[in-house]
Amino acid sequence: MTSKAVFYHAGCPVCIAAERQFVDALDPSQYRVEVVHLGEQRGRIAEAEAAGVKSVPALVLGGLPFHINFGASMADVKG
Amino acid sequence: MTSKAVFYHAGCPVCIAAERQFVDALDPSQYRVEVVHLGEQRGRIAEAEAAGVKSVPALVLGGLPFHINFGASMADVKG
Repeated sequence: MTSKAVFYHAGCPVCIAAERQFVDALDPSQYRVEVVHLGEQRGRIAEAEAAGVKSVPALVLGGLPFHINFGASMADVKG
Repeated sequence: MTSKAVFYHAGCPVCIAAERQFVDALDPSQYRVEVVHLGEQRGRIAEAEAAGVKSVPALVLGGLPFHINFGASMADVKG
């Protein structure tokens, strides 16, 4: 059975580089990965923050937030 | 064919949490993951820095460094 993983980003260059490497690197037999662009799906910012996301790109895996490098703070994403 | 991925850490609590989630989440058909504890394998600090690692935990994937959350700076690791 696979778990859901969510990769949150905001389209920044650091985000795109991380997305390409990380999303493809996860084991598809363990995770279904959803990619969410918070700049385009602003309705999901609250959900990301509730999961503990402080900056993007971030991957929520097993319910825990992992911030990967640093692209933009959530304050910047909210604008 | 699998590529090599290296997860560098220094035993800090943030490092251990990230290791458990990330190392197991990578697709074993794509990556062989080596875990390096820089506090115990100080001879590999230079290699990590050459790969662009600035803080731990970090995963070097496809030759690129990805810093995951923040456990300790390389300056702290060097002591």
